[in-house]
Amino acid sequence: MVTDPVDASILSNLQIRLAARPSGLPKPSDWNLARQAVASPEPGAVLIKVLYLSLDPAMRGWMNEGKSYIPPVGIGEVMRAGGVGRVIASNNTAFAVGDHVSGGLGVQEYCLIDAAGIARGELTRIDLAIGTLPQWLNALGMPGMTGYFGLLESGQPQPGETVLVSGAAGAVGQTVGQVAKIKGCRVVGIAGGADKCQFVVDELGFDACIDYKAGLVRDGLKLYCPKGVDVYFDNVGGEILDTVLTRINRRARIVICGAISQYNNTTPVKGPSNYLSLLVNRARMEGIVVFDWAERYSEAVSQIAQWMREGKFRSREDVVDGLANFPATLNLLFSGGNFGKLVLKVADA
Amino acid sequence: MVTDPVDASILSNLQIRLAARPSGLPKPSDWNLARQAVASPEPGAVLIKVLYLSLDPAMRGWMNEGKSYIPPVGIGEVMRAGGVGRVIASNNTAFAVGDHVSGGLGVQEYCLIDAAGIARGELTRIDLAIGTLPQWLNALGMPGMTGYFGLLESGQPQPGETVLVSGAAGAVGQTVGQVAKIKGCRVVGIAGGADKCQFVVDELGFDACIDYKAGLVRDGLKLYCPKGVDVYFDNVGGEILDTVLTRINRRARIVICGAISQYNNTTPVKGPSNYLSLLVNRARMEGIVVFDWAERYSEAVSQIAQWMREGKFRSREDVVDGLANFPATLNLLFSGGNFGKLVLKVADA
Repeated sequence: MVTDPVDASILSNLQIRLAARPSGLPKPSDWNLARQAVASPEPGAVLIKVLYLSLDPAMRGWMNEGKSYIPPVGIGEVMRAGGVGRVIASNNTAFAVGDHVSGGLGVQEYCLIDAAGIARGELTRIDLAIGTLPQWLNALGMPGMTGYFGLLESGQPQPGETVLVSGAAGAVGQTVGQVAKIKGCRVVGIAGGADKCQFVVDELGFDACIDYKAGLVRDGLKLYCPKGVDVYFDNVGGEILDTVLTRINRRARIVICGAISQYNNTTPVKGPSNYLSLLVNRARMEGIVVFDWAERYSEAVSQIAQWMREGKFRSREDVVDGLANFPATLNLLFSGGNFGKLVLKVADA
Repeated sequence: MVTDPVDASILSNLQIRLAARPSGLPKPSDWNLARQAVASPEPGAVLIKVLYLSLDPAMRGWMNEGKSYIPPVGIGEVMRAGGVGRVIASNNTAFAVGDHVSGGLGVQEYCLIDAAGIARGELTRIDLAIGTLPQWLNALGMPGMTGYFGLLESGQPQPGETVLVSGAAGAVGQTVGQVAKIKGCRVVGIAGGADKCQFVVDELGFDACIDYKAGLVRDGLKLYCPKGVDVYFDNVGGEILDTVLTRINRRARIVICGAISQYNNTTPVKGPSNYLSLLVNRARMEGIVVFDWAERYSEAVSQIAQWMREGKFRSREDVVDGLANFPATLNLLFSGGNFGKLVLKVADA
């Protein structure tokens, strides 16, 4: 079945490509804006109009050369990004024109996924009755999956334990804290600035939130985690991780999800000097990558959607408009300039 | 039953006491030699003649102020040490004169354990038919228990996996490597100097051993761990830990047993800069303290003793003579000057 209500060849596709590997914070010259004609979908392929893109700290890692959990984006390639969009032409019976989908769409206006990509499961149909497009990039998307499985599977929180999460107002942190509250834990966040801390407590229901920009981490941990820390979900690394290591409990679990404070380092990553606290406390530090739970995403989506319906769970996004604003918007993540999950709006519908 | 064939009051007890908290490597002036009359055992107490003492890297930590898994040795107190000895007077029906025992005897010639200490299980009878006195401080003692449970419980080695252990010729390293071989793993050691490396391979049966003093860690890992590292049992920390982190496999387990390279630092401990390899590889780093398996020591002693009888397991000690040599001998651990488990002989019998 071929359904092609648009003549793809008349569309031009604005793309943002990686021009150079950044040293430190990405500069405008590390990016190329390019415009390309859109090809009509081959047999088995699907053409998607990109509506929203997910901007994530992990993107900074994808720009570096070197072995990681995923190959780097090549120089001259369209920047990798998760996104949601609408099918505008389909040569694949699995997707119909008008379907809303989620997948690795890239920083561009149109994305063509071929038969092989679809066979590999790179495209997922999403239901806007369950959540908005931006929510499908947040609580119902990768950050939600990361927080849900990372906390529950690696963190193993028990009712009554103290769960601490850095980047608490951010995409993953929101989910971690709210899931931990639902599981009966005492939940403390770390975020930058009074506004974010207030949001985390008032809107997301954390028990407390520590403002690291006010230099309050050490004192805040004493004040708000009087029984120590049982689970630390770390999105930031650096000095905060080192300080938290001095306050962990016996058999604590530290979930290493990211280290945003270190991603733009031009010097070596700061390793946690206090790592021997793991020994003293028989504690554990474990790295997680969300893809490992791919077969269970639908389980988490159902659960989080139910909590959202019941009013127990909120999904907050910070939406910036315009594909061309991608370079500057991405850098907001590294200054903490975003408030909630950072999403780039590419088109209305 | 009182059995007191010696008149304790005529014995004088040479003791080594902590005089000052060291900065860096302990100096002679950090110790006091003292001589004290021996008190006769009160009801319920036991008097032990110390025969051999265990010298362990962990002792350096006990000399520092600050919270750890065990309180620090106080200034003016007899230095804490595990040891084996012979009961020479007993006011406790659980121990008879002539019994050989193991426990926290301290760096001294005689040790009095009171009724409360015996009730807490501080003294264990040992059987010289199973192993020699030095072996009861090595494979059948704390290092053996540490290596056995640390490897099997935290490291979770599977047949065919590659197990890497630093401090391979040392007390804990010997046990780790030999247990891993028995469990069907490929076993690679890291040790200092060609002699130790040869011993580890020829006498202990490791598949290979890397000489870190020859600067061969990075190349050695490529050569001898061609399939990467599944379990790393770390006794040393520092640069070696950081290098190993670049070679770990998916779902690797790093057992943090110690960090001897860092114990005499006067600057902050070097944290592992490459800790984000835990994330990329979904790997785990866990601290262990042997005391947590105290209720299962007898299980490990039986198993290791059986392997020793079957010729599958060797226990190598480096015995230095004379209590007064304690300060200089302890420091051998930090230069790698010992060859095998370091033991101080205090008396013949």
